[in-house]
Amino acid sequence: MTGFTDDERRAVYRAIYERRDVRSHFLPDPVPDEVLSRILDAAHHAPSVGFMQPWDFIVVRDASVRRSIHANFECAGKRAAEVYQGEQRKLYDGLKLAGILDAPVNICITCDPDRAKGSGLGRQTDPSVALYSTVCAVQNLWLAARAESLGVGWVSILDFDQLRQTLGIPQALTLVAYLCVGYVSEFRPRPDLEEKGWETRGDLASVTHFDKFGVHERTQPG
Amino acid sequence: MTGFTDDERRAVYRAIYERRDVRSHFLPDPVPDEVLSRILDAAHHAPSVGFMQPWDFIVVRDASVRRSIHANFECAGKRAAEVYQGEQRKLYDGLKLAGILDAPVNICITCDPDRAKGSGLGRQTDPSVALYSTVCAVQNLWLAARAESLGVGWVSILDFDQLRQTLGIPQALTLVAYLCVGYVSEFRPRPDLEEKGWETRGDLASVTHFDKFGVHERTQPG
Repeated sequence: MTGFTDDERRAVYRAIYERRDVRSHFLPDPVPDEVLSRILDAAHHAPSVGFMQPWDFIVVRDASVRRSIHANFECAGKRAAEVYQGEQRKLYDGLKLAGILDAPVNICITCDPDRAKGSGLGRQTDPSVALYSTVCAVQNLWLAARAESLGVGWVSILDFDQLRQTLGIPQALTLVAYLCVGYVSEFRPRPDLEEKGWETRGDLASVTHFDKFGVHERTQPG
Repeated sequence: MTGFTDDERRAVYRAIYERRDVRSHFLPDPVPDEVLSRILDAAHHAPSVGFMQPWDFIVVRDASVRRSIHANFECAGKRAAEVYQGEQRKLYDGLKLAGILDAPVNICITCDPDRAKGSGLGRQTDPSVALYSTVCAVQNLWLAARAESLGVGWVSILDFDQLRQTLGIPQALTLVAYLCVGYVSEFRPRPDLEEKGWETRGDLASVTHFDKFGVHERTQPG
C-alpha cells in the first residue's frame, strides 16, 4: 500500500480537527442504510488486542425506545447537576447534553471482555485492553461519521443498569458508549464546552514529555 | 464548516481501512519533529468527556530507555506464552509482538482520571469515560500516523509497574497505551494476526443489533 497524497493527508486531519461532540444541531433527516453500514464497518475495522474484535453495535431507531432512554438520561442528569453550585450550576443547566430524541439514530456500543476471538493474546498483563479496543471502534465511527457529514454525540450521563435492561444487553458485556448520530444543521468551529465557557483547550506542550515524565524540553533522539 | 468532497471522504476511509498494528516492518529512519508534533496534536484534538483532556504523552526516543522497556516486554512475553500449548504455542512463538527497538519513536500515553479540567462533567455515572477519552486520543494519533506513512504498534504485553518506574510516571496516572512509531518498509494488506492464521475477521452483521440486543434483522426506523 502506497503513501497518502497531500490532499488525502489533509482530508484525514480535516476529519480529526472538524469532528465535534454534537448535542444541539441534529436534524430529523433519516440516515440511509448504506451510510449507517459504512460507519459501522469503519468501527468494525478498529484495531483490537489479539484481533479479538470485542464489540457489539446496537442501533436504536425506534422512537419509543429512545423516549425511554431519554427519560433515563433526564433523571441521571438531575442527579449529576447536584454537585454544581452558583455560576457553574447556571452554566450546567444551560448546557444541552444529549440529542437522544433529536438524532434519528442512536448506537450503543458494548465490549465482551471474554470474547474467545484472539485466544486472550495481549490481554493477560492488562485486561482493560479489550475495553480500549472497543473505544478505538467508537473513534473510527466518529471520524467516518464526520466525513459523511453526520454528527455524533457521546452521552455518558445515563443509568447504565437501566440502559442494559432497556436494550436487553447480557450482564457479561460492558456498556462502553451511547452515541447519538444524525445529520446536523452545522458543525461548530469549536467544541460546545469551549464556546459556552465551560472549559478551555490546554496547551499540547504542557502534556508532552520527553524520555521521562516531567521533562518538557525536547531531547535529542538517541 | 462544509461537507467533505467524495475524495476527502475516501481519504478518511482509506486511513481507517489501511491502518495496521505494525510489529515487523519498522525502518530506522528518524521521524521529523514537525511530523511527530502533527500526530501528537491530532491526539490532543480527540473528544474528551467534559472537555477534560486527561492525557499525557511521553515520547521515548532514548535508546537506553527503549532497551530497558524492551527487556520488560521480553520478560512479560515469556510469562504470557505459558498459557499456550501445542500448535498455538508454536504460532505464538513465531509472532513478532513489538517493535520497541526497531521503531525510532515510542510513545506512552497516560490518563489522569482526576484532572480538574472539565469540572467532572459527564464523569459521575461512569468514571471510565476519562480512560475512554484517552483511547480516542490514541486512535486519532494512529490514523494521523497512517496518513503520514508512519506505522504504529500498540504493545500491551508489559509489566506496567516497571514501565511506570522506568518513565517516572506518577502513581495517580493510569498507563493506557505504549506505542511504537516509525516509518515502515510496507503496510500489509491485512492485519498480521489474520495473515499468520491467529484469528479471522468476524462478520459485521453478527455483531450488529437493531433496537434490542439479539435482533439482527434490520427494523424500520420509527
